[in-house]
Amino acid sequence: MTANLIGELSLTECQQLLDAHHFGRLAFLDPDEARPMIIPVNYLTHRGRIVFRTDPGAKLTAALRGASVAFEVDGVQDQQQIGWSVVVQGQVQEVTDTAEIEELRATPLTPWAPGAKSHFVRINTDRVGGRRVSGADVPSHWWG
Amino acid sequence: MTANLIGELSLTECQQLLDAHHFGRLAFLDPDEARPMIIPVNYLTHRGRIVFRTDPGAKLTAALRGASVAFEVDGVQDQQQIGWSVVVQGQVQEVTDTAEIEELRATPLTPWAPGAKSHFVRINTDRVGGRRVSGADVPSHWWG
Repeated sequence: MTANLIGELSLTECQQLLDAHHFGRLAFLDPDEARPMIIPVNYLTHRGRIVFRTDPGAKLTAALRGASVAFEVDGVQDQQQIGWSVVVQGQVQEVTDTAEIEELRATPLTPWAPGAKSHFVRINTDRVGGRRVSGADVPSHWWG
Repeated sequence: MTANLIGELSLTECQQLLDAHHFGRLAFLDPDEARPMIIPVNYLTHRGRIVFRTDPGAKLTAALRGASVAFEVDGVQDQQQIGWSVVVQGQVQEVTDTAEIEELRATPLTPWAPGAKSHFVRINTDRVGGRRVSGADVPSHWWG
């Protein structure tokens, strides 16, 4: 079972990995169909939290309003079958603070586009967990 | 918005990408907490469907019994900011057919381990979708 390859990451390690990457997967409940959906998301960490953009009026924006979500970032090499995975669980909240929005507009998360009306949402973190994973892991080792 | 980098994948392309990879992310509703969870999962496609292993008795096994799930596989390069993502939605079902279990035991999904009592579950696919994604995508382009 290659249990030697499996280990829990510290909170500091999780945060460092989240800080160092900008692509993750967001899971939420599709309100129309009451079943899980996953979308790939570009993000950054800002003031310690996951932040990404959505468009006002988009189906996603409505679905995420206050929603409980899970967000995953990983660095697994399919060929080498080793890597890591960090999962954040929390609630989505729109960023409304003017100063914070200004800071976010200065980040690479928002390339300048005239007329773009995207806004920013953050995940207010309830829980963070991370593991080293191997290609031989079974899911129950991770979560069961 | 780099819309030129965004395109929908055909069903054939989606299936080829799913067939060619063995690591994905499974989203489901944690029944204890009624909120989404994501776990990294080793999988293979067998008879056209996503198959992975769980342990009987594990929390995960109970959570997934008949559950609606989303499953995502991607090949995004964080640095180059281009890639692809395929999402499968469907219901989890245990594989009980003896012949199919024998076939699965002969795959790399199950390294031999004396006493291991893992079993196999598949995702009965309701929907498959895939996109080319770029680092400049916003989530609403994907799903909104």
